[in-house]
Parts: sequence; structure tokens; C-alpha cells
Amino acid sequence: MKVYNFSAGPSMLPEEVKLSAQRDFLNYNGSGMSVTEMSHRSKVYDEIHQEAIALLRELMNIPDNYEVLFVQGGASTQFEAVPLNLLVKGKADYIVTGNFAGKAAKEAVKYGDCQVVASSKDKNFTYIPDVDKITFRDDIDYVHLTQNNTIFGTRYTKLPKVNAPIVADMSSNILSEVFDVNNYGLIYAGAQKNIAPAGVTIVIVRKDLLDNAMPICPTMLKYKTQADANSLYNTPPCFSIYMAMLTFRWLKALGGVKEIQKINEYKAGLLYDFIDGSDLFTNPVNKADRSLMNVPFVTGSDELNAKFVKEAAAAGLVSLKGHKLVGGMRASIYNAMPVEGVQALIEFMKKFELENK
Amino acid sequence: MKVYNFSAGPSMLPEEVKLSAQRDFLNYNGSGMSVTEMSHRSKVYDEIHQEAIALLRELMNIPDNYEVLFVQGGASTQFEAVPLNLLVKGKADYIVTGNFAGKAAKEAVKYGDCQVVASSKDKNFTYIPDVDKITFRDDIDYVHLTQNNTIFGTRYTKLPKVNAPIVADMSSNILSEVFDVNNYGLIYAGAQKNIAPAGVTIVIVRKDLLDNAMPICPTMLKYKTQADANSLYNTPPCFSIYMAMLTFRWLKALGGVKEIQKINEYKAGLLYDFIDGSDLFTNPVNKADRSLMNVPFVTGSDELNAKFVKEAAAAGLVSLKGHKLVGGMRASIYNAMPVEGVQALIEFMKKFELENK
Repeated sequence: MKVYNFSAGPSMLPEEVKLSAQRDFLNYNGSGMSVTEMSHRSKVYDEIHQEAIALLRELMNIPDNYEVLFVQGGASTQFEAVPLNLLVKGKADYIVTGNFAGKAAKEAVKYGDCQVVASSKDKNFTYIPDVDKITFRDDIDYVHLTQNNTIFGTRYTKLPKVNAPIVADMSSNILSEVFDVNNYGLIYAGAQKNIAPAGVTIVIVRKDLLDNAMPICPTMLKYKTQADANSLYNTPPCFSIYMAMLTFRWLKALGGVKEIQKINEYKAGLLYDFIDGSDLFTNPVNKADRSLMNVPFVTGSDELNAKFVKEAAAAGLVSLKGHKLVGGMRASIYNAMPVEGVQALIEFMKKFELENK
Repeated sequence: MKVYNFSAGPSMLPEEVKLSAQRDFLNYNGSGMSVTEMSHRSKVYDEIHQEAIALLRELMNIPDNYEVLFVQGGASTQFEAVPLNLLVKGKADYIVTGNFAGKAAKEAVKYGDCQVVASSKDKNFTYIPDVDKITFRDDIDYVHLTQNNTIFGTRYTKLPKVNAPIVADMSSNILSEVFDVNNYGLIYAGAQKNIAPAGVTIVIVRKDLLDNAMPICPTMLKYKTQADANSLYNTPPCFSIYMAMLTFRWLKALGGVKEIQKINEYKAGLLYDFIDGSDLFTNPVNKADRSLMNVPFVTGSDELNAKFVKEAAAAGLVSLKGHKLVGGMRASIYNAMPVEGVQALIEFMKKFELENK
């Protein structure tokens, strides 16, 4: 049975990427070795590493005054690495639009005067605060925001105008739409949603922000450590970086971020339109702030939600259960989810609606 | 051409493990998904995660009063996590027997009164100090040592008798010989030498040492965080953990650690015996302290060393170049290196010696 995996992460990888990794699993590029077992100091791995960085630079049009780093530990580690590296004056403002944004703010408090200056908690994070109406404090080192909120299904469509670097967690929408990197001081993203198997985290950081880490910052969390070593200070998660490279190749061949954005808008449009026209399903999110990647939806009944998740899984539409903070269902439709997967989900929803009137 | 990979890490994985991972790469256990893309909260992944932990417990005979954690960031991150978690009285003693032992000691100084109480630097780390002659300080939180020294090719064959927990970096010899976990307070090991692709790090920690982290310790580096969440606090490096599970199965089927130790002693014996009898090659390490995993050797000439490395690679014996701190050659012969690989190396060395008299 064909399976479409709607998991919020780790999540679907492109078919082509998986096939290529499988084909070359025992003997990569004539080396007689698997990428899972080759030295990270070898020429054959170095080519993978360099190509992955170069392709990400190309796809995101990353300016020369930014470093691209491959690190470990997921976005959760960046919740602490960011303040440990970027707090110089000791003050930062956080916008809290969901669970992970809240965690980032909570961790940062340990290392400085980090405050939540705006939040959408009042309406269970179903919207993004109007960024033009937020009052930021003076003399802050940065503003932190979560560009796309995986659990609640929202995303920013504009950035605050503020006289401080913007730090964005893009774990769940990096490479899904065009972003101008110049608008950010730092971008970070766990790879397991739009890029590669879990285990590698992307950090894109403006070079002038690179070398201000606190003395208590662990060496392994210092951006300078990783930048100086081209992310080879110690053994990197080579296989995840290799699969990232394959995904970058796939995305480039497809026409790049501009093209995938069109496809993502099309896919999300299909699903939101169906939900909005449905008598059974609803999406709680403010329309202007709806995510292209994560689409939560509910029926009016917990019992029916559970039935939906179970029957959908039996039909090959898996990992549709919503996060416990929202309930109901959630369809994560990242870059690698084909249009056919979204269509199959909609067909299933139609049928379910008919059967459960 | 059959390739034998003598890399110090990442390094060879068992043929069976790779074949199994390749076979199931697109559809693991009938899920229709690759392990590279499935939710870490799914039932199918959870079975992998639990089995990996259970098998490691079984293979190492880990007592119930120890936690097994899967974390990220490599041993280098543990160089800092250890003092951040374990310093309570604020004092620890370090034995420096090589490059990584030295790095561990250097990082620890940031977080407390951490001192080097013994070192083998005087003879370029070609031996292990007599542990019975080391004077440890009073009131220390732990003693840190590096059980096997990847670069210099030495290993401890006995432990110091000391009234403090022993913390051991076992990155390059975990599961290669029988260790009594009861003798340690904490064991850590990057997986990329004897277990799995780079990206996962094993921590085995006695439960009474688990919950003493300093307030400045990043949440992600706290052992308690990971222990409470069964290493699922955030997305773990699922694919590396999956391949670890496959390696653990392979090792169990082979008869466990006791059996692989015999094979490792046999393999290392073949190579050391040949080197000791050779007129061209020498190994600089004190015989009693020789590693079973990493065998450095040199000819008398840099030119000849370079020629050896080049010609060996052409013959399918790759990554034999020694670390720059030692020079010459190094054969890393971890668990997954078959006896045939060591025999092929010896045959090549014999031929090279004849041709270069």
C-alpha cells in the first residue's frame, strides 16, 4: 500500500532522494564504502559536505557575510545556543506564538534579561500578533521569533521592523518559501522536516554576530568553533548531511525555492479550501496567518477525531493525529509531500464526511 | 574491488547491518516508510528505540541503577556536559593520555577546579601511566579518563582505585571488550567507531549522579532532561539509533562482547606480531598498553610512509594515514573489521616490505 506520511517531523523525504540513498548505500561514488561509515576527513566525504553547503547557499541566496553551519542537537539546543552566543548587552525580546517559541523564551531567561514582548497565547496561538504593533525594548541584542509554528499551524507573513537582528527558528518551514536572509541576523532549523533525517541542524548566522559567546558557553555550542572548522570541529552527522545534499539537489532540479513555494501554496490551498467548505471539518487558525506546512483540523467530536485518525492510517494516510495541545488532526505537508498525497487526504476526508454525517 | 576501511572514525559497519539497512530503506517493517523519515513518536520507531536500549543493556550487562541515554553532539559535547552535570563539590581530577583526554581536561577547567593529576605527554602518549601510583586529590567529584586513545593507540587495562566515580570516554572501544559497568560512574561514547553512523552518542550514567547539573547547564545537556524523557525530549537521531540497534543485534548473534573481545584480541595479535617481527615497520606503544582498536605504525621514512598509504589505498586498504600528531600510518580495526581485512593488510605490508628493502 502506498503510504503518505503526514508526520510533523521527522517527515517524508522525496522519493528520488530515498531511492538515490538506497542505491548508493553500500558503495557511494565508487568508494567501496557507505556514507554511514566513511571518514569525515576523507576526500569523498568532503565533496558531499562542500556541495551541501554550496547548494544551501544557492537555494536560499545566502549572502557572503553569513556563515552556514551544520550542528547537532536540534532546534532545542539552539534555544540555548542563541542567548549563549548572542547576548552581549544581555537583553533580548521574544515573540511567543506557540510551544517551541515559548520554550526558546524560557531557556533564554537563564542567560540574560530575556522577555516576552508579544504573545498569541490568549487565543491558544491561533494567530500571529501584528508585528507592527509590538513595542520592542531599547538596547536589545536580538528579537527571537518562530517563523512557522508546527503545532498550531501558523506562520509569519511579515517581519517586525526593529533595530536589532531578528533570530528565526525556521525548523518547520525552511526552504518552503522564499525568505530574504538579509532580513535576519540568524536562522536555525532542525533538518528533519524539510531537509534530511533527524540529526543535523542548520544555522545561518551573520558573521558580525559570530564571535560574542559568553565564557560559560560550551565550546561545542559556540558558533565560532563551528565556523572556524567549517562544521568539522568534531565528527559531524555525515549521513544526515549527505541526505540534505540529496534533498538540495532535488529542490534545485525542481526549480528552487520559488517553484516549491508555488507548489506548497497550491497544496495548502487545496486543503484549506476543502476544510473551509466542509460541514464537518474546521481549521481554527486566523486565515491570514495560516501555515503552508502544518494544517490542524478538527471535527466537533473527540470520538470522531479518533475514528478519523484510525481509519486514515488504515488507508495509508499516517501520522495525522494532532498534537495534544491542539487535539484533533494535523496534516503536515512539507516540501516532500506530493500533490497526490494532499489529494488523497482530501478524497478520504470527503468520504469520511459523507459516512459520518 | 573489495575495500577495507581502516578509518579511525567514522569507520566500517558490519556488512550484515548495512545490507539490512539498505534492504529496508524504503519500507521498514511494513510501515511503508523509511526510518529516515518516520515520526519519533510513532509506534514503529518506538520499538526500534526500546530495542536499542534493551540490547545495549544486555550486551554490556548494565545494572538497573544506571540510565542509558542517546544524545547528540559527540564525545566533544560530553567533555563539557560531564563537568556541567557532575561537579557538585566543584573539583575533578583528569588523567591525560592523549589528544581527546587533553581536550576533555581543558574544557572542564571552565566549570570548576579540574586538574590534570597524571599524564603520559612526556613520551608522546605512548603509554598509560601506572594507575596505582597516581595521587588523587581529596573531595573530588570524579576522575576522568579516556579508556582507549584513538590517535596514540593505547588503552587502559586496569582502573585506578579511587574513592570517587570514574568517568570514562569509551568512544573508540565501547563494546570491543568486556567492561564491568559497576566500576564506572559514567561512560560516554560517540557511536561512529564501534556502533553506528555518526550522530548519536551513548551515555551510561549511574542514577545517583544524574540530577546535579549546574544552573548554567543547558537543558539539552542535562542528563536528567534526557533520562526523564527516555532520550525523546526532542527529536533524536533516529536513523543512527536504528543502525545502532542493528549493530547490537549483530553483536548479540555473534555471541556478545565476550566473543568479539576474543576476535579483537586475535586480530590485534596478528597485526602486532607481524609489526614486531618486521624489519621495516614499528609500533611505538608500550606493549602492555597497546590498543586492540587502533594500531599506529611507521617505517623509518616519511617518504616511505606516504608511499605506503598511497599504494595501500590503491589496493583497497583505505584511510591508513596516521593522525598528524603521530605521523606514519594507523590501522583502526574496530569490531566490524573482519579478520580478512587485517590479513589483507598484513599481506600488503609483507609485500611492501619486500619491495622497499
